[in-house]
Amino acid sequence: MSTLTTIGFDADDTLWENEHFFRLTEAHFSELLADYAEPEILASRLLEAEKRNLAHYGFGIKGFTLSMIETAIEITDGKVPGDTIGRIVAAGREMLSHPVNTLPHVHETLEALTASHTLVLITKGDLFDQERKLAQSGLGDFFNAVEIVSDKSPSTYATAFARHGDGPDRAMMVGNSLRSDVLPAIEAGGWGTYVPHELTWDYERAEEPGNVPRFTKIETLAELRPLIERLKG
Amino acid sequence: MSTLTTIGFDADDTLWENEHFFRLTEAHFSELLADYAEPEILASRLLEAEKRNLAHYGFGIKGFTLSMIETAIEITDGKVPGDTIGRIVAAGREMLSHPVNTLPHVHETLEALTASHTLVLITKGDLFDQERKLAQSGLGDFFNAVEIVSDKSPSTYATAFARHGDGPDRAMMVGNSLRSDVLPAIEAGGWGTYVPHELTWDYERAEEPGNVPRFTKIETLAELRPLIERLKG
Repeated sequence: MSTLTTIGFDADDTLWENEHFFRLTEAHFSELLADYAEPEILASRLLEAEKRNLAHYGFGIKGFTLSMIETAIEITDGKVPGDTIGRIVAAGREMLSHPVNTLPHVHETLEALTASHTLVLITKGDLFDQERKLAQSGLGDFFNAVEIVSDKSPSTYATAFARHGDGPDRAMMVGNSLRSDVLPAIEAGGWGTYVPHELTWDYERAEEPGNVPRFTKIETLAELRPLIERLKG
Repeated sequence: MSTLTTIGFDADDTLWENEHFFRLTEAHFSELLADYAEPEILASRLLEAEKRNLAHYGFGIKGFTLSMIETAIEITDGKVPGDTIGRIVAAGREMLSHPVNTLPHVHETLEALTASHTLVLITKGDLFDQERKLAQSGLGDFFNAVEIVSDKSPSTYATAFARHGDGPDRAMMVGNSLRSDVLPAIEAGGWGTYVPHELTWDYERAEEPGNVPRFTKIETLAELRPLIERLKG
């Protein structure tokens, strides 16, 4: 078996909290439109709008804000007051300055692994927002490279691990999304390590693969270094 | 004098039309709010909102759309109808699928230069939107690398030209923005070639430098290859 030289990390909900802030904003959105729709209906219409708009906006908070505005207009038949839209815009902007809370075991895991491996941050979302969060996290120096991408497909990983490492065959991707982090990295020929987060956006859900040797599920990042040690053996 | 090995190109309004679509959308925005404000007042309030929001949204169409919405709410004291906001959202989304019209001399200039130089596309804006435009332009294969960045400072150019070429000292940046393309590339130690476009966003304006040997202004990209030939001599 080839030796692992390169480790890719997802950012949102792998290194720091993210979905938490989307849920808070969605709860606020739901309150703002409480006179017009039940929370469940609103949530399902918003998710529809988000999925439909991915092809236009890509991933990230600005697209999410525009999808909230669109949903507010749709669900009220255009009757939503301008002030309410203003509050939605403000809620979106607040998300763009939310604090960056790194998750447990992240700092010490990256600090230890950067001594022995090439570390690459591979994340999607708004370019500007991801750069801000990386800067505020204080984790930037642990990474040899940062790739902010518009989508995460097998070819994304093939390209990133060829550019910054020794190809996907000697690389592992670590993240909380089976759909975006784990499965496409394995399809590209790499290892895929799944670290579930209690909050995960519906879009990112997928089935865990069955008997796939390069797939591992761990509970927290504390298990990552022992896993990598075992792979050496 | 060191030899030029690497050429960076800006994208919007250097390789293809861009500001044109912003102006069309702004005219549409102005019509939608004609009952509330004069076009000049609206334009100036929108520009204020855009500049203020750069720190939150960065550059690009999604941020521009959110700034239009915010301006519509402000200028009507929150009275703008939801339907009108819906039209603004739709106008922003249309921009994200506008056709990519490459400018004169672009194709043959890139085709010729890629044989002798390392070509790097360096652009800001929405990641997803810039990738779409590059794909639709058919120019992607002429570039050795693409950098979609959140801002263009001297250190942006120092980093990009070190990564993809032989450092800024042996690199030239070509673009229609003095503020973002030309001046910071010269400050980083490179050549800066200014190709003005008849439409330029207010934010990108700056004074032309006086007696700076590495600065050149050309009228169209047709003059770029002769300029590069002269530099060799």
